[in-house]
Amino acid sequence: MKIAYQGEPGAYSEQAVIEYFKESVEPIACEGFEQVFQMVESGETEGGMIPIENSLAGSIHQNYDNLLRHNLFINGEYYMRVSHCLIGFPDVKLEQVKFAHSHPQALGQCAENLRRFGIQPVPEYDTAGSVQIIKYLNDPSHAAIASKRAAAISGMAVIKDGLEDDQQNYTRFLHITTKESKTIEHAKTTIVFTLKNEPGALFKALSVFALRDIDLSKIESRPLQGTAWNYLFYIDLIGSIDESAVRKAISHLKEYAETLRIFGSYPKAIR
Amino acid sequence: MKIAYQGEPGAYSEQAVIEYFKESVEPIACEGFEQVFQMVESGETEGGMIPIENSLAGSIHQNYDNLLRHNLFINGEYYMRVSHCLIGFPDVKLEQVKFAHSHPQALGQCAENLRRFGIQPVPEYDTAGSVQIIKYLNDPSHAAIASKRAAAISGMAVIKDGLEDDQQNYTRFLHITTKESKTIEHAKTTIVFTLKNEPGALFKALSVFALRDIDLSKIESRPLQGTAWNYLFYIDLIGSIDESAVRKAISHLKEYAETLRIFGSYPKAIR
Repeated sequence: MKIAYQGEPGAYSEQAVIEYFKESVEPIACEGFEQVFQMVESGETEGGMIPIENSLAGSIHQNYDNLLRHNLFINGEYYMRVSHCLIGFPDVKLEQVKFAHSHPQALGQCAENLRRFGIQPVPEYDTAGSVQIIKYLNDPSHAAIASKRAAAISGMAVIKDGLEDDQQNYTRFLHITTKESKTIEHAKTTIVFTLKNEPGALFKALSVFALRDIDLSKIESRPLQGTAWNYLFYIDLIGSIDESAVRKAISHLKEYAETLRIFGSYPKAIR
Repeated sequence: MKIAYQGEPGAYSEQAVIEYFKESVEPIACEGFEQVFQMVESGETEGGMIPIENSLAGSIHQNYDNLLRHNLFINGEYYMRVSHCLIGFPDVKLEQVKFAHSHPQALGQCAENLRRFGIQPVPEYDTAGSVQIIKYLNDPSHAAIASKRAAAISGMAVIKDGLEDDQQNYTRFLHITTKESKTIEHAKTTIVFTLKNEPGALFKALSVFALRDIDLSKIESRPLQGTAWNYLFYIDLIGSIDESAVRKAISHLKEYAETLRIFGSYPKAIR
C-alpha cells in the first residue's frame, strides 16, 4: 500500500507512516502538503498521512486549510512521540559542535538545550534536509537536528538524542483517503462549520454538544478566505456519526451553522 | 517615543508602527518577536508593536505564547491593509521577472498571481530582507515581494503593486507596554484562561459571556506547555473591564477557570 507524506526520506512524517501502517506500507515522499492531498485525490496513492497538531507548537493550519480545499476524508489518527537527535559525522563529540542546522520549529523545541551546550541554531527548510546540508559542509562544528531515522539512512551518527527541552512533544497525524470512514466503536468525528457573525453564535453551536453530554477533544478556528475576519470552526468530538446523540447534535447544529461538512468518524487513537 | 518592532526597516511591522503612532515615533528594529517583548519589558523602548493575526493566514501563535511568558499589557490595536509589491531594479519589466524572493507567507498570498505571470517563488526568511538579496544577485530576472516602503528605502522600484490574490488581506497589530490600560468607552478586552479537561468546560466558560450578552470577537486555543494536549484559551471580548457586566462575567468565569489573566481593556480599532 502506497501512502504519501510530506518531506524527504527520514522526515518525521515518514516515521509516522511506518509506525502507523507497520511493514506493509510503501511511504511516498512529496515536496509539500498540497502534493500529498493531490496524490491521494488522484488515486496515485491509497492514502496520505498529514500532521495536524503538535503538543507544543499547536495546530498545523496549512493542513486544516487543505482539508477544506480537498474532497477527502479522515480514516484514522496517530499520536507520535517526537524525539530530536543532534546528528553529525561519526566520532564527532558534543563539545566540538558549534552550529545546529534544522527547521525553525525543531530549533525552537531544543532552544534551552542548545543554549546550555553553547550551540548556535541555524534555520533550514527541513529537518531531514539539514542532515544533507551538514554532510555537504563537511565540518565537525556543524551538526543537524532531525530524527534517528534521518541519521541512519544518510550514514551519519547521533551525537545526542532527546535534545528537546520538553519531553511532552507529540505530533498528531491524520490518515486521509478518498473514502468516508464510519467507525462506530471508540470513534472520534471531525467536522467543520461556519456561523453567522453575531453575539453568542459559538455558544449556541457548542450547546448542541454540551446538552447531549458529547465531549469535544479539540476546537480550532481559522479565517474564512475571501471575507476578512469571519471564521471557520473545526471540532473533534468523541463519538460516531452513527450514534443517535451525535446525529441529533449535528442536525441541531445545522439550525445555526451557515455551512457544515463532516470529515468522517474514525477510530480514536490512544495517546 | 521609541517603539520596538520585529524585522528590518521596510518590514510591514515598521509600517504599522508609523501608521499607528504617526510622525512622533522612532521605530526600533528587533531581530525576533522575543526581542521586541524584552525591549519593552526592560524599558529600552516605551512600547512595542506586534502582529497577532492575519485575515488570510490566521493567528501568529508565537506572539500569543510571548504574551503569556511576559508581564506586559495591551494598550491598543491596529488593523493594517497588507499590500504586496513586486520589487526589482528600476526599468525592469514584469515580463523579465522569472523568480520572486520573499517570506513563505507573502509568497503564499501571491501564489495565484505568480502562477499567472509564470514567476517561480523562492522562499526567504524576511520580506524586506529579500529586497537586499535581489540587490546582491543583481539579475533582472530576480525580484522580491515586500512593502512599498521596503522598495523606497533600498532605492529599488515597484514593478507591480497589489500582487496579493485576495484583497481582504489585513494584519491586526497589538500595541504592548508595561502599564495596564483600562479604557472604558468603545473598548475591547483580552484575557487568557485554562479550564479543567472535562466535557462541556468550554461551553460553561462561554456561557458567562453569552448570558450577559457580551460579544466575543475572537477565540483562540493554544497548547499549554508542559502538559501534552491541555489548552489555553485566549478571548477578545467587546467591552471594558470597568463595566459591571464584564466584571461580573470574569468573576463568574473564575468559578470554572483554573487560571485567568487579563491583558487590559483598550480602544477597539475600526477595521
